[in-house]
Amino acid sequence: MTIEEFFQLSAGKWFSHRTGHDLASKQSKNGKSDVIIEILAVDHPDVVKLCQNYKIDPSHASCGVRVTWNGTIESVKEKHSGSTVLVTIPDEGYSDRGKLLQEIVSAEKTSITGRYQIGSDDALILTTESGSMWSEERLWFASPNLRMRSSLMKHSGDFSMASYTSEIRMGGSQPAAKASDAAQSASS
Amino acid sequence: MTIEEFFQLSAGKWFSHRTGHDLASKQSKNGKSDVIIEILAVDHPDVVKLCQNYKIDPSHASCGVRVTWNGTIESVKEKHSGSTVLVTIPDEGYSDRGKLLQEIVSAEKTSITGRYQIGSDDALILTTESGSMWSEERLWFASPNLRMRSSLMKHSGDFSMASYTSEIRMGGSQPAAKASDAAQSASS
Repeated sequence: MTIEEFFQLSAGKWFSHRTGHDLASKQSKNGKSDVIIEILAVDHPDVVKLCQNYKIDPSHASCGVRVTWNGTIESVKEKHSGSTVLVTIPDEGYSDRGKLLQEIVSAEKTSITGRYQIGSDDALILTTESGSMWSEERLWFASPNLRMRSSLMKHSGDFSMASYTSEIRMGGSQPAAKASDAAQSASS
Repeated sequence: MTIEEFFQLSAGKWFSHRTGHDLASKQSKNGKSDVIIEILAVDHPDVVKLCQNYKIDPSHASCGVRVTWNGTIESVKEKHSGSTVLVTIPDEGYSDRGKLLQEIVSAEKTSITGRYQIGSDDALILTTESGSMWSEERLWFASPNLRMRSSLMKHSGDFSMASYTSEIRMGGSQPAAKASDAAQSASS
């Protein structure tokens, strides 16, 4: 699978169920969100702007995607929403790996860079580093309508949090899936 | 990595934090356990007996392991404990894949068979099927002292549950790890 195909498969609306395991306190934190994933043309102003922020020629971008979320963190009944734009810049001569540019707009606006790679098992690995935080996320499809994510965060070199997310397609680019039968269609 | 090396790395005592996402009801279920993983010699009576149950020559077994757990399911404050013996029978000519035999002793005693495979990324994939249940589990090491697991279950062909587990070494075969500094040592 190419990164373009991975993002195409990801496009649409998802119900996202996330659990974090705090590795020091051994507590869990659950969150549920509606997530919308949209493909952005490589000449979309947000893609071009993000490339320019890092002084990268926008013509080198292979993919752009916008992820918007709106949900609740259960323990604190706290609403959270935000969006992020991701842009991939393939390494020269490679179709499966490269540089990742990301801008996150939530409580505040953050830009980070990292790396992406599609494994031989079609899973996408995203690695980002920002200040003392390091994170690696693995995303893969169990079926076209069920996406899984697991991520690990390090803070100042120590693993601090493991997070796990199950995402069930609610509609969008895969016409077979409807919100009313999302759980059933997860198996299709 | 070979299956023998994967089990050797797994040997010891672990704090195991498990979360299940019910894909239909969208509810989570958390559980915490102490888990002990012991390597069994291939001529151990439990390994030999499990092979004989499936009319497999015990000399074909490459690995035996016993997993014992003792913990609590949080929502119902319910104690759960049990043990399982796993035996691997490599496919002829392959060191990275083969048949998996498993006997689980919990509320009742169940024997199941399945398949194992070590991927090119050193993750272990276990697939089992029993009646209308199908399950695939992926296990991998983030570090020698932090093991991750994610599994998916199907019931009658539909995905029913996604489960995620973080396991922090509490002691045992890796002398660097002590119970008192498990979270810190998870990063080593």
